[in-house]
Amino acid sequence: RLEKMFNTKRSHLCIGLDFDLDKMIVPNVKDLHSLESFIKDVIDSTIDLCAAYKPNFAFYEKHGPSGMKLLENIVSHINKRSIVIADAKRGDIGNTCINYAKSIFGYYDFDAITISPYMGSDSITPFIEDSKKGVYLLCLTSNKSAIDFQYKFSDNSYLYEDVANLAVSLNNNNIGLVVGATKKEEIRKIREIAPSLTWLVPGIGAQGGDLEESVTISNTGLGSGIINVSRGIIYAGKQSLDDICNAAIDYNKQINQFLDYNE
Amino acid sequence: RLEKMFNTKRSHLCIGLDFDLDKMIVPNVKDLHSLESFIKDVIDSTIDLCAAYKPNFAFYEKHGPSGMKLLENIVSHINKRSIVIADAKRGDIGNTCINYAKSIFGYYDFDAITISPYMGSDSITPFIEDSKKGVYLLCLTSNKSAIDFQYKFSDNSYLYEDVANLAVSLNNNNIGLVVGATKKEEIRKIREIAPSLTWLVPGIGAQGGDLEESVTISNTGLGSGIINVSRGIIYAGKQSLDDICNAAIDYNKQINQFLDYNE
Repeated sequence: RLEKMFNTKRSHLCIGLDFDLDKMIVPNVKDLHSLESFIKDVIDSTIDLCAAYKPNFAFYEKHGPSGMKLLENIVSHINKRSIVIADAKRGDIGNTCINYAKSIFGYYDFDAITISPYMGSDSITPFIEDSKKGVYLLCLTSNKSAIDFQYKFSDNSYLYEDVANLAVSLNNNNIGLVVGATKKEEIRKIREIAPSLTWLVPGIGAQGGDLEESVTISNTGLGSGIINVSRGIIYAGKQSLDDICNAAIDYNKQINQFLDYNE
Repeated sequence: RLEKMFNTKRSHLCIGLDFDLDKMIVPNVKDLHSLESFIKDVIDSTIDLCAAYKPNFAFYEKHGPSGMKLLENIVSHINKRSIVIADAKRGDIGNTCINYAKSIFGYYDFDAITISPYMGSDSITPFIEDSKKGVYLLCLTSNKSAIDFQYKFSDNSYLYEDVANLAVSLNNNNIGLVVGATKKEEIRKIREIAPSLTWLVPGIGAQGGDLEESVTISNTGLGSGIINVSRGIIYAGKQSLDDICNAAIDYNKQINQFLDYNE
């Protein structure tokens, strides 16, 4: 379904729906009710420009149950017109992850989830049992302190490479990797380890990652990459629908100059 | 506050409030409404027996916004009579974690949260800014596949030891570690690295961890440990309030045989 979205929409863009009610620039968005209308308008304006949307749960959870209701309404409004990725970074023992999967895939009906690898394969397998639902496993992240643990090196490999290897070994055609755009040199090596996994690439825009490297390497060979932009689009200009839409068009063009599409 | 709870209640027990609506044994608990009454009764029956409660978010999130409302009502019902730990295992970039902290500590008013270390110190610091709120950082977990990444060894240390070292260096008197009870040999070494951090120890009961080792090592010297039991208490016997209460009394006794309390 993701490949189909890429080709139909001619877009590898993912828009991060990380609207922070306390930081909105546009006037008249003052509460969850007006935020919901605004996000729905943003979706309707950008639906043909992106392969996926990715709401980060923190921005919804901070409003308690009403924030989760907002999230539910947003997924429902997208209504399968794009892939929807739950940026939730969950990770727990197997028995618990079964219930997280019921939440993300069952209750909210997301297509995919981001998960954290620290607890190992037990914490991944409950999310990949349904072949129609996918996971993006944190591999190399785009933040500064990624270096604290992800670069631990032994037996000729970094920890993030071990994570990529585990993903390859568990892959049921529904595991991808989160590979930060801010790490140019490392990403070539990850593409060698996992030549056909789909990548979710954060770090473009506000975090300053390199777009050309990210797009070309992530889409090498059988692999494909979705490029996520959050703040660079949703806080564009004066945050009018035109500003947001133009930013999405612009990012999509920038991405597409490095890509060929199948007809 | 935690130390005060230990001494006032003469208990180092944490009860994991991981009730799964689909697996309840007790009759008459069939929906979220009856589950809420039941959980409140369990809390009122066990409040003097435990230092802390720890609801795991997966069991609430799977019911969507109504499940989160249930969680909110439970924290409010505990009403500071025990420490309440959000077992949410969050972890994201700094900007995002600020919002998770607003959710867990602000909206829901939990006392502490469990977090995942994969993304490094950026993902930890937003949770420790308020000295009255605490974090338990996943260090060595009790599940089988903990071995996949946590035992990666370089420069004379395992990854879980590096995590313990980072926790010590960031500690603002409000960082603890999650150290699984199923790992007897490793936990002595972690206690050496982090002699004064508080530990949250899962893995007793259903997961089969060693109680004596866990209690004595976690409570060595300046360190202290909270021993979590979830399924071993909340699914005790026929799941009557008496069965649950007796299981809590029994676990508390078992733990206390290895401890001295200050008067």
